[in-house]
Amino acid sequence: MSLNPKRTVAELKELRELTSDENGAQRVAWTDVWQKARKWFATKLVGMPLEHHHDAAGNNWVTLRGASEKTLVIGGHLDSVPNGGWLDGSLNVLAGLEVLRRITTEFKGKPPLTVRLVDWADEEGARFGRSLLGSSAFAGTHSIAADRVRTDRDGITMEDALRRCGVHMDRFPEAEKERANAAAYLELHIEQGPVLEKMGLPLGVVLGTKGVERHAITFFGQEAHSGATPMSQRRDALAAAAKLALEIRNIAGKHEDAVCTMGSVKTFPGIVTAVVGRCETMLDQRDLRPNVLAQMYSEAVEASKRFAAEEKCTVEWSRIWNIEPIPFNPHLIELCDQTVREISGSSHRLPSGPLHDAAEVSRAGIPTVMMFVQSLRGISHNKIEDTREDHLEMSVAALDRLASKTMDWILETH
Amino acid sequence: MSLNPKRTVAELKELRELTSDENGAQRVAWTDVWQKARKWFATKLVGMPLEHHHDAAGNNWVTLRGASEKTLVIGGHLDSVPNGGWLDGSLNVLAGLEVLRRITTEFKGKPPLTVRLVDWADEEGARFGRSLLGSSAFAGTHSIAADRVRTDRDGITMEDALRRCGVHMDRFPEAEKERANAAAYLELHIEQGPVLEKMGLPLGVVLGTKGVERHAITFFGQEAHSGATPMSQRRDALAAAAKLALEIRNIAGKHEDAVCTMGSVKTFPGIVTAVVGRCETMLDQRDLRPNVLAQMYSEAVEASKRFAAEEKCTVEWSRIWNIEPIPFNPHLIELCDQTVREISGSSHRLPSGPLHDAAEVSRAGIPTVMMFVQSLRGISHNKIEDTREDHLEMSVAALDRLASKTMDWILETH
Repeated sequence: MSLNPKRTVAELKELRELTSDENGAQRVAWTDVWQKARKWFATKLVGMPLEHHHDAAGNNWVTLRGASEKTLVIGGHLDSVPNGGWLDGSLNVLAGLEVLRRITTEFKGKPPLTVRLVDWADEEGARFGRSLLGSSAFAGTHSIAADRVRTDRDGITMEDALRRCGVHMDRFPEAEKERANAAAYLELHIEQGPVLEKMGLPLGVVLGTKGVERHAITFFGQEAHSGATPMSQRRDALAAAAKLALEIRNIAGKHEDAVCTMGSVKTFPGIVTAVVGRCETMLDQRDLRPNVLAQMYSEAVEASKRFAAEEKCTVEWSRIWNIEPIPFNPHLIELCDQTVREISGSSHRLPSGPLHDAAEVSRAGIPTVMMFVQSLRGISHNKIEDTREDHLEMSVAALDRLASKTMDWILETH
Repeated sequence: MSLNPKRTVAELKELRELTSDENGAQRVAWTDVWQKARKWFATKLVGMPLEHHHDAAGNNWVTLRGASEKTLVIGGHLDSVPNGGWLDGSLNVLAGLEVLRRITTEFKGKPPLTVRLVDWADEEGARFGRSLLGSSAFAGTHSIAADRVRTDRDGITMEDALRRCGVHMDRFPEAEKERANAAAYLELHIEQGPVLEKMGLPLGVVLGTKGVERHAITFFGQEAHSGATPMSQRRDALAAAAKLALEIRNIAGKHEDAVCTMGSVKTFPGIVTAVVGRCETMLDQRDLRPNVLAQMYSEAVEASKRFAAEEKCTVEWSRIWNIEPIPFNPHLIELCDQTVREISGSSHRLPSGPLHDAAEVSRAGIPTVMMFVQSLRGISHNKIEDTREDHLEMSVAALDRLASKTMDWILETH
């Protein structure tokens, strides 16, 4: 079979039909709908000369053995958030399947090197709040002790939920053996942001995933009666937080592509008749450059202290989570850039704000790159998530061409 | 008996002992503890030549008949918020009782005009969210249809709770007859704010209660991924709200004594990984001058629209509640000012931010004034609410002297 990107679009619609309801995709990892998606996917492999197995972390591997054991890996994930979209993760898997079909046909079932397609388990972390679960087991960056006791909304532990799907968390480290011979990793994904749409470009090259500093910041003032407390005698915790909510835009604005977000503000006592005595906020800062990330963090800390002092408040910081920036492989970025230019006429290089399984693979030392296809309105994790069909088709063609270039590079360099 | 302010302090402590727990006063209206407080109060009247009855709205009246039917009314409230303080409302009632004792003695049970002490029912509105309930029935500004269906945390309606205390809401209008012959109304209260403490003054003269404009203001932006959405392409509802939270201080700052408070901010979806798509805020604006209140309101509306436009958001306003400013009687203000100077050496005139029963009495056309005694740290509605005992004693002496001056004024002018 020659490459047929229209088939990928048709299969995406078939999967949507099978695993969505009126609120969107419901392929939450470790649920029946997710398992139904994986069974449907398995039917697509019938009759092809492929090996198919699940690893110890529940990752779903399809292997086309080649003349060399050196391996090109293409990845994605069939799981979705609740009420999710039709493309996030699934496009990657089904485009990868189409590329595998083309390679199988072209090389009559025996390519010069091995090609594998992986459907990572639980990329989204939607049920237990732990994203990149399968790829972190692959990369050896799992956190089993902390994760096994996580519970879903119904109080079911992660350990129990995975066991019902045949996955034993104690055995996660065995998934690391899947890394053997992996020479390169490619992942196509919808952008999930508005940059390519705004530039009028169908495709983009991803430079890496941004590092994240994520903190809870609480300002402490003095609760006081709204009517009886003169403006000059207030210690308004909301005022200090409001100043920081505005200042983070200046802090991010000094660096192209950097972002800072205050996504949550809670006021206490939170009633209209009291000056806010305590204001809890959450800050998320991201950039691809470690020095920029560090600078933004220290500037936010300094600003928060200054605003607290101005408002006669105090401030406390507590780190929620952080991860370092993960740059992708320079040579694969060049190959991806060439490919995007050849397929769509012009290219753009951008960092990824969201994390992806590709970040875990790259952390494991495997040369990695991602390609983005334009998202409409920049919206994802929502049933209105969408991409133009001609762009989807171009993205399949581009992934296929990038796979060929990468296979050539692996053969040249190994 | 001559005036004995130390007895008032002792009785306040006795009441505290009887009706508080480790979290503070628990005299919530229409509860057993509140009824216990009222029964205790009734024991203090035994042996005095006083009439004692509850009116149709549950207000608790003590009457010393004089030669004239013209009446001086002194008021307060024994009810408290849950976990309240020992002074808010009770000081007023027990200081009034001490004044009544002095007048009874001085005039051998027959003063030249009638003097009444009222313990208003449910000033705080703590259980059903409807404050000034008894005094509004007295003033004829009750809202029976809206109030009877209010429920407490256990789902009990106001109508049922009052009936168990022998009060039938349909009969509220009968409480208006208590207005007959009322020639002046006096109320002593703790300040509940920090102004007198900051000025080093024990006592102050209240000019009236501030008008209130209370609004829910919601900014609508666009929920977007914290990582994937460039700063320049955001429509951040929190940013617009933060600008307003800061601007209300400038709006209030143009006018002495005016206050504006944003007491509540809620962010949606309110997660660290999403730019805030919707931000719900609540604004409370207060001033004694109707034109200032109107100006502050219109400036806040204008500012909110400007900030929404700057942030590519929209904004909607919804009025929660409002009340006009209620100025007290100019002549009684002068008498109160004289009294405060005589008792404590110097005086200060200030508006009341919190509402009081005196506002309802004044709205009913009865000449009214209030006197404030200093609050420590400006804190009330809390078990740490406190006032220096020498200041409490001065306040009793001042209320007594103001009562004498007011009786003279009533006799001169009627």
